[in-house]
Amino acid sequence: MPKPRLLVMSDAIEKLVRPGADEFEIVRLEGAGDRDAFLAANGAGIGAALVSGMERFDAARFDLLPDLGLIATVAAGMSGIDLDTAKARGVAVINAGDLNAGDVADFAVTLMLAQTREVIANDRYVREDRWPAARRRPPVSVSAQKVGIVGLGHIGLAIARRLEPFGCEIAWWGPRPKPDAAWPRIESLEELASWSSVLMVAARGDDSTRGLITADVLAALGPDGLIVNVSRGFVIDEPAMIAALQDGRLGAAALDVFEHEPINGSDWAGVPNVLMAPHVAGATQQAFARVFAGALDNLRRHFAGEPLLRRVV
Amino acid sequence: MPKPRLLVMSDAIEKLVRPGADEFEIVRLEGAGDRDAFLAANGAGIGAALVSGMERFDAARFDLLPDLGLIATVAAGMSGIDLDTAKARGVAVINAGDLNAGDVADFAVTLMLAQTREVIANDRYVREDRWPAARRRPPVSVSAQKVGIVGLGHIGLAIARRLEPFGCEIAWWGPRPKPDAAWPRIESLEELASWSSVLMVAARGDDSTRGLITADVLAALGPDGLIVNVSRGFVIDEPAMIAALQDGRLGAAALDVFEHEPINGSDWAGVPNVLMAPHVAGATQQAFARVFAGALDNLRRHFAGEPLLRRVV
Repeated sequence: MPKPRLLVMSDAIEKLVRPGADEFEIVRLEGAGDRDAFLAANGAGIGAALVSGMERFDAARFDLLPDLGLIATVAAGMSGIDLDTAKARGVAVINAGDLNAGDVADFAVTLMLAQTREVIANDRYVREDRWPAARRRPPVSVSAQKVGIVGLGHIGLAIARRLEPFGCEIAWWGPRPKPDAAWPRIESLEELASWSSVLMVAARGDDSTRGLITADVLAALGPDGLIVNVSRGFVIDEPAMIAALQDGRLGAAALDVFEHEPINGSDWAGVPNVLMAPHVAGATQQAFARVFAGALDNLRRHFAGEPLLRRVV
Repeated sequence: MPKPRLLVMSDAIEKLVRPGADEFEIVRLEGAGDRDAFLAANGAGIGAALVSGMERFDAARFDLLPDLGLIATVAAGMSGIDLDTAKARGVAVINAGDLNAGDVADFAVTLMLAQTREVIANDRYVREDRWPAARRRPPVSVSAQKVGIVGLGHIGLAIARRLEPFGCEIAWWGPRPKPDAAWPRIESLEELASWSSVLMVAARGDDSTRGLITADVLAALGPDGLIVNVSRGFVIDEPAMIAALQDGRLGAAALDVFEHEPINGSDWAGVPNVLMAPHVAGATQQAFARVFAGALDNLRRHFAGEPLLRRVV
């Protein structure tokens, strides 16, 4: 029996996921020159593709890959893939799913704690020989924070569980009530923001949540409020957030994600009270290892005709 | 019945603790000029003193305060007070005790998370328009950390409880076994350090723990290890720690306390992988409010002949 033909986007991804040559006939896209021409010549018989979500898969590409049944991505993002066309052509797409939800929640809590307990300012005071500067105005205790979680999915739940022993009050909002949730759901997002001293944005990032955090939600969070975003940049009305921070109508922000990534942080130099990170919430050695192993597992499942895990399409 | 005479060290402390003039006859030390001369003239009949722990109370001062029964301090530190002489003279001393243990534990966890998830480096990458720099080497997941807690008192316990839902392994060492502890005790401090990827120093800071974290303990923690200190600076052999960080024999440090405070952080400019804070772990609005209310409560208890709380001597 011939080995299944697997398209691999880059040597880096091959090295990380390690699909064995004993198991697959590997077709390498790296160094292939004109990719469309290469696929026109070699695309037939390719049953699956192992890629980052950046690689372009549109109708023209699908035409070159008539036997493609699975696109396995090794990141949560899938910006290069036309999901509607994939669906129409019967091509399954899998991604990292929630394999890194715990690390994302860790980072959300890290950002909240670092911002509320003023880690960067304190480090700077010491380094700049201004030790007493920290004494001016002590921060609010973590135990006195009211944390509103936007989206009680895998990540939101993991955030709530981690914050529980810190003694802060926790509430959440999401489009659907969850009768089993251990924390109260507040009826509307604006009410949640108004109640919260810290708003943790952990909603899924897709068209249904674009612009979810409006200027009104930010106004409800208010001048003493902190917004933490580990979802997607476009979930927040970013220009409104920047204006609110500059005017002091919003207290502070801690952001792992931005509307257009990567950003040049120097563009944000005039925006006060912001802690920034370059979309690394889910990026740990352990999460990557799980994602790579999960991609290989899905490739095997696909060619064995077994159900896929973390299927997006 | 005459009101009890209360010595108050500063207007700032009086404003924070608010001992009422209807309740106490307040003798103010601020603006009194030569304090010893002032106390020689006014010390008789003073039954209690409300002070920061910096104010000098040695044998000569106690001679000027023959009726003193209580020194109530509003900080954990009591460096100005000769505790042996206080004890010999039958003067009780109370301090902030564990009223801020939760905030100290919050900050210990904050320092650990900020350092392991590289908050300062990530913020700098974004601000300096070096977004991709964060991709070079992902950090170890919090869930994969092995956290060794030195001292399972109020603070150590509060740290362990907070870290539990992050999924890290937790163990501890202290001089005495605690049969009720939910986490395993490792037989020696050096073994604990050797097992740990993160060593959280939460031991009490007194003569019994001076130099507890020796060069050998730091060597056992090793080149991938992180040490977090929210106890007292002198609990760590600080020169040995600095040398180990400089040589790469110790991975990283996150320090709220130093051997000689305040430090000039610029002296530490050549020490890599250090996150610093100016002894603020317990400094929150809520902790201060509890400490001030607790001091007033103890003053009332003292003059009512009731048992004191958080008594040191």
